[in-house]
Amino acid sequence: MPETKEPYTIAWDAESECIVYIDQTLLPGRYEMMRCTTIDDLARAIRRLEIRGAPALGIAGAMGVALAAVRSTEEDLGRFLDDVRRAADHLRSTRPTAVNLAWGIDRVTRKVAMAASVAEAKAIAVAEANAVAKEDELTCRKLGGFGEDLFPDECTVLTHCNAGALACRCWGTALGVIRSAVAAGKNVRVFSCETRPLNQGSRLTCWELARDGIDVTLIPDSSAAYLMRKGKIDLVIVGADRITKDAVFNKIGTYMHAVAARHHKIPFYVAAPVSTFDLSRRETDIIVEERDRSELAYCGDRQLVPDDVKVLNYAFDATPLDLIDGIITEIGVLRPPYAESFRLVGKGEETRP
Amino acid sequence: MPETKEPYTIAWDAESECIVYIDQTLLPGRYEMMRCTTIDDLARAIRRLEIRGAPALGIAGAMGVALAAVRSTEEDLGRFLDDVRRAADHLRSTRPTAVNLAWGIDRVTRKVAMAASVAEAKAIAVAEANAVAKEDELTCRKLGGFGEDLFPDECTVLTHCNAGALACRCWGTALGVIRSAVAAGKNVRVFSCETRPLNQGSRLTCWELARDGIDVTLIPDSSAAYLMRKGKIDLVIVGADRITKDAVFNKIGTYMHAVAARHHKIPFYVAAPVSTFDLSRRETDIIVEERDRSELAYCGDRQLVPDDVKVLNYAFDATPLDLIDGIITEIGVLRPPYAESFRLVGKGEETRP
Repeated sequence: MPETKEPYTIAWDAESECIVYIDQTLLPGRYEMMRCTTIDDLARAIRRLEIRGAPALGIAGAMGVALAAVRSTEEDLGRFLDDVRRAADHLRSTRPTAVNLAWGIDRVTRKVAMAASVAEAKAIAVAEANAVAKEDELTCRKLGGFGEDLFPDECTVLTHCNAGALACRCWGTALGVIRSAVAAGKNVRVFSCETRPLNQGSRLTCWELARDGIDVTLIPDSSAAYLMRKGKIDLVIVGADRITKDAVFNKIGTYMHAVAARHHKIPFYVAAPVSTFDLSRRETDIIVEERDRSELAYCGDRQLVPDDVKVLNYAFDATPLDLIDGIITEIGVLRPPYAESFRLVGKGEETRP
Repeated sequence: MPETKEPYTIAWDAESECIVYIDQTLLPGRYEMMRCTTIDDLARAIRRLEIRGAPALGIAGAMGVALAAVRSTEEDLGRFLDDVRRAADHLRSTRPTAVNLAWGIDRVTRKVAMAASVAEAKAIAVAEANAVAKEDELTCRKLGGFGEDLFPDECTVLTHCNAGALACRCWGTALGVIRSAVAAGKNVRVFSCETRPLNQGSRLTCWELARDGIDVTLIPDSSAAYLMRKGKIDLVIVGADRITKDAVFNKIGTYMHAVAARHHKIPFYVAAPVSTFDLSRRETDIIVEERDRSELAYCGDRQLVPDDVKVLNYAFDATPLDLIDGIITEIGVLRPPYAESFRLVGKGEETRP
């Protein structure tokens, strides 16, 4: 199995009992590991997108519960569990659309609730959070292996936002598939959309692919369809923040690429772990996070738009399943008809890995 | 006829014999009139997009020839005309895709060549450049009148880049149609795409619509298709930089909106004066300008992408005519089949207004 060249995007520091992570708002200019020692720290880091990416948010949620557990000074188990639940609720509210955050929080919270003592609960919380992180790496590697089978030996791939090592513990989902294809000896060139307004494509995807020596070219989001028209793109691959029974929620712009890909008869793939699925819900049940106007109104210190102009800044969009040619997971590639293939994902929490 | 509230975007200053213009790179932060007293000044202003927008470039081309004429110190008519032609060639090379620039240059150069003396040539050059500017305003008003008939009484319109007063002498093409619809009492709301990488949508379209009290909301380019999916857009209207016999060249992103509009069965209109048509050429004959990597690689002073990452920065794309429901001109709305309706535009330069 090929090694990643850098430390994990997010990890538990056993010695200091805290979370260490790469602050993604500083990239590509500065590569810096930060620490969260409190739930407020972590909530702030998530809201500010210092930690982002659906799988990484799953790990952050799990480790957040571990952090709340080890930092609680309550000696009574009931009050201790109240502490943990309060922290869990606080964390859950930071990003409403990505399901993995809630998934990671809930997974550790449920385990902790079964402990017989505070000491046992603390140990379980840390162990389970570390298990979530380790499984994430294994999931990305498996998913990458299934996905790379879909790549021709020579191809140019479009991706949007960052579904990479920086969105997971390492390796990545969409970029994990690209890494797996390159590791298998395929000649893969990547077009990375800058991904407005926060430029995760420029800052993160270009940075991590260039770091790993993968051929990457930055384009504005708006030129992807034109490159398809010019025959320069062979397939599209993106990540996901939540997959309901009828749609894939992902970074704003994903839907536009799916429409353009269908128009040009180019395959459109989603790469996401099973923890991203939320099959009890439909598109219309999901709140799409609207972010602050400042993300579009300013470029650095420069104001781009007058104060009295309204801004509509959806962080995500929803792509209906009929525009998606395959969903690459750690249990294989799910294909249409999805009503059938989604049965493999299982129903409810119990069958989630 | 409603008046615009601000000075013309570009005009000839008869007293100082120079070109005055609004420096569009400073908006929306600073509204400042600048002067070009030499051809080098003007070429630089065009390359830096201080002056931009297809119709405004037509005026700039015409006034550039006037500037070269009045500033020439040659007393011999032959050498004077060589001076003017050299200036014309220099200006023509500054932006290869927008046809109006060459159109404006050629129109004045041809008139000047018919003069019997240097003094007459100088007078003709200034008079013809001013005629181009005056006709541009009339063209926009006529075009606006034809276009607003296409708008329902209540509608939400998507536009991309800036085809507004700032892209013309005043009033605008796509935004001129919006202004005409508002002036006719229609209730029009506008979504303005920010238009990466230079944000003409944020900086210019939002600024000039807000200035005129028109309801405008800024969105990232990548969210237009999603807003169409959510039923929030009734029609799309954009400008054009060149219309060949098979395609409309306009700001990168236009094609993506056209594909999405077709997918959602939303009308897609182009608003452009007849001077934008170049019907002797096809899409494949046209050079699409590629601009500097720095436009995508930096946000103000902040570097968004590592130095070793390639950037592909097309300034324009091409939308095939079959995705366009109507082209709004000063001679009426041209409809498919365009092979037929384009006959109204006339063939070659002679019939151009």
